[in-house]
Amino acid sequence: MPGPRRGQPRGAAGAPPGLLALAQANRYPFSVVHTPDDPIAALATPAAPSALAVIRVSGPGSLAMLCRLLRGGPRLEAAPGHTLHLRTVRDGEEDVDQVMVAVYRAPRSYTGEDGAELFCHGSMPVIQRLLALLSRAGFRPAGPGEFTQRAFLNGRMDLTRAEAVNEIVRARTDKARGLALQRLSGAIEGQIRAARELLVGIRAALEVGIDYPDEEDGSAPFEADGLAEATEILEALVRTYRRGRIYQEGVTAAIAGATNSGKSSLFNLLLRQERAIVSDIHGTTRDYLEGMVSVEGIPVRLFDTAGMRQSADPLEIEGMRRAEEVVRAADVVVYIVDSLVGVEARDQAFLEGLGSPAIRVWNKIDLGPAGAEARAPTLAPPGFIPLSAVTGEGVDDLEGAIAAAVLAGTSGEAGEPLIDSERQRDCIGRALESLARFRGEREKGTAPDLLAVDLAEALSALGEITGEVTSAEILDRMFSSFCVGK
Amino acid sequence: MPGPRRGQPRGAAGAPPGLLALAQANRYPFSVVHTPDDPIAALATPAAPSALAVIRVSGPGSLAMLCRLLRGGPRLEAAPGHTLHLRTVRDGEEDVDQVMVAVYRAPRSYTGEDGAELFCHGSMPVIQRLLALLSRAGFRPAGPGEFTQRAFLNGRMDLTRAEAVNEIVRARTDKARGLALQRLSGAIEGQIRAARELLVGIRAALEVGIDYPDEEDGSAPFEADGLAEATEILEALVRTYRRGRIYQEGVTAAIAGATNSGKSSLFNLLLRQERAIVSDIHGTTRDYLEGMVSVEGIPVRLFDTAGMRQSADPLEIEGMRRAEEVVRAADVVVYIVDSLVGVEARDQAFLEGLGSPAIRVWNKIDLGPAGAEARAPTLAPPGFIPLSAVTGEGVDDLEGAIAAAVLAGTSGEAGEPLIDSERQRDCIGRALESLARFRGEREKGTAPDLLAVDLAEALSALGEITGEVTSAEILDRMFSSFCVGK
Repeated sequence: MPGPRRGQPRGAAGAPPGLLALAQANRYPFSVVHTPDDPIAALATPAAPSALAVIRVSGPGSLAMLCRLLRGGPRLEAAPGHTLHLRTVRDGEEDVDQVMVAVYRAPRSYTGEDGAELFCHGSMPVIQRLLALLSRAGFRPAGPGEFTQRAFLNGRMDLTRAEAVNEIVRARTDKARGLALQRLSGAIEGQIRAARELLVGIRAALEVGIDYPDEEDGSAPFEADGLAEATEILEALVRTYRRGRIYQEGVTAAIAGATNSGKSSLFNLLLRQERAIVSDIHGTTRDYLEGMVSVEGIPVRLFDTAGMRQSADPLEIEGMRRAEEVVRAADVVVYIVDSLVGVEARDQAFLEGLGSPAIRVWNKIDLGPAGAEARAPTLAPPGFIPLSAVTGEGVDDLEGAIAAAVLAGTSGEAGEPLIDSERQRDCIGRALESLARFRGEREKGTAPDLLAVDLAEALSALGEITGEVTSAEILDRMFSSFCVGK
Repeated sequence: MPGPRRGQPRGAAGAPPGLLALAQANRYPFSVVHTPDDPIAALATPAAPSALAVIRVSGPGSLAMLCRLLRGGPRLEAAPGHTLHLRTVRDGEEDVDQVMVAVYRAPRSYTGEDGAELFCHGSMPVIQRLLALLSRAGFRPAGPGEFTQRAFLNGRMDLTRAEAVNEIVRARTDKARGLALQRLSGAIEGQIRAARELLVGIRAALEVGIDYPDEEDGSAPFEADGLAEATEILEALVRTYRRGRIYQEGVTAAIAGATNSGKSSLFNLLLRQERAIVSDIHGTTRDYLEGMVSVEGIPVRLFDTAGMRQSADPLEIEGMRRAEEVVRAADVVVYIVDSLVGVEARDQAFLEGLGSPAIRVWNKIDLGPAGAEARAPTLAPPGFIPLSAVTGEGVDDLEGAIAAAVLAGTSGEAGEPLIDSERQRDCIGRALESLARFRGEREKGTAPDLLAVDLAEALSALGEITGEVTSAEILDRMFSSFCVGK
């Protein structure tokens, strides 16, 4: 297939631009976005006493405004970027704190604007006083994610990286951190741009077909290979969404089983083995314990339903009801059977009553059968994982089974970037739909002018992912989930 | 009185140094202190998700060690101090996070050593991974206050300033912040040095008397004025301890009174008026509510004993018992009387039963006497503060009364530095005792050699305050109360 030959397009010659212009308009299609650049300030570290706290300011003129609050050295207005300066913050005649000021200069700053970070003592009254002082000096308290939003608006990063900033902060396991960092380094952006370039190539070929309909044999020299390749990139990417989401957002797992089967021992074992992210978030008013663990990099909120089926006491019956709710809502159920007792009728009933298959654990393999002279372990029935919640034997198998159950049916090879953003998934989905329509219409022999509409929609959807096409509404929604100071 | 004339002291001539040498030995009396300078690392911000986290490293060679973990720019080993550098931290082939590295060079750094701060994403897995990586790279986890301890050992600050670093971090009100900053700026150190210089002058005069006992009339030319002045400085300083402690550590106040007198309304009013530091630290298992408020800059832990004397139910009787304990243990009791009811026998009994006088509040002055046509407020009995917990009228008077009651009998004028450190108070106390002995012995005509002992002790005690005289034990005790990363 010959490459597209370029001529003088009609649009440039002053003729009515029509559909082509619409398509072209999406080439650099920044929508009109509200781009406030007033000076903002926010605490960037948690509001709790500690050695240090960091307060960020950004915006044109922010350094001059800040200078008026500082004493103890030359004015920082003219200080070079990426330098640190020890100063005292003053409120009128009163000193507020001794701080280190990091100066950043546009455009080589996080936001792309002039700005600074104040490293002050991590003291609540210091933080409160400094924020109040900055506010009185004209700095507006920054909204969630506003620094990153400015970084995007000023061309410092695309939207996939901006979302990754939030994802890395919210990551709960090292695996999730690594995936978010990969996205922050531009892995998703790179894939989207690759697909986009292929589609732009097709659009160029299409333009030739539109502008010179009578040339050659009348059919535009479509890049069928390019279309297949772009579709493949996008399909592979969108398939990773479920897996990416699991690593970022985590799943819930409930441990169930008869009394004395070893639920609490297993719960504690999983928490103890240095996998615990949070181990003490059980309330006194709940009838189950919960903890957060990392199971092969997946954040798992683990529930121990130890309170189940213990008595006829009304309070405990209520506890059982809540425990059952937990089991029903869990993504994974780990059902534990005491190997000394074996599988009983109520175990069968429970397992059959579950909507989905449970991971079955054959516990207490460190002990022989009850009453046996030799401590020979009872063989686990088929489908059961032999385990000792006391010695820890078999726990790796259990964790592997949990991870396999959670990841079953999801895609994403090791090293491959995974999508975590619902927004990105939806955009890719829309791009793929447009491309499918494009392919269908093309096969039907539809005119290039009309084909260009589907292509323009696909390009627009991809532009939304990286932020080349966007709106204030999309940005506001996205950044509202960020923390303040980021 | 003639100024001391200087001759050739015996000690310098090779003669047995005796007591004079002992006294002189305290002139630069650094004890042998364990001064480790191995590279240390610690998180300096709270361990919670946020926009940013700061990890500090310090120690000779720490920059070279850190460089091996960074990629994405020139090596920072030779970077000038007080500069910022964007880098990627890597663990072998794997990237861990994108960080900003602040480089500090000895001696112009907080610790006085080469060091750096890593500004990473405030993500728990990032923090954990970076700390683990630094540990494997040879950085020892820093102990509490170890950065500040190094700052002291390397002559970057004296011990009064080092203690003020901890005090400013732990300050809970703006007043406490201001007092700690004053100490951090050297206000206490200045006073101690002033007193010390006066005593050194006396010692110089005493040396003349020791070395030339037969000269002139045999009595050493003591600087009586200097002694009085030094004593005055130290006495004024030690008197501020109680007030300094109150602003830093705070007090407890209990609101008591009959049912429906308005205890909870007053409690909520005090918490509501933007004075609340912590408003929600009441447990479900307690029979009283508590909150932290700033009353004229004093951190006040406020207790509402609303559960008192309500029924004969065993649980409520237990509640009353606990509430009574709270009242007995409180530094201040605010007793509230309903002006519509007036002072009753049980109020009298309660107030008389208290060990100390309570602050009495005449509540509900917004309402007239019960059943009265005109809404003329009932006049408050003598010693009662008229107040409306509904409108807030009188609350400033109440706060003034609480502050006055708390500060009664303490010293420290506005603007004067206040001591918060028990250690400093004890040292000043010992210095004053030595000076009192010195004065007594001198009046008895004791020989200069023996007088020098008391003077040496006083100077040693003052040297302990600033850290010129110290021991590893003192330092370890002091810095153990610091937070890690400071």
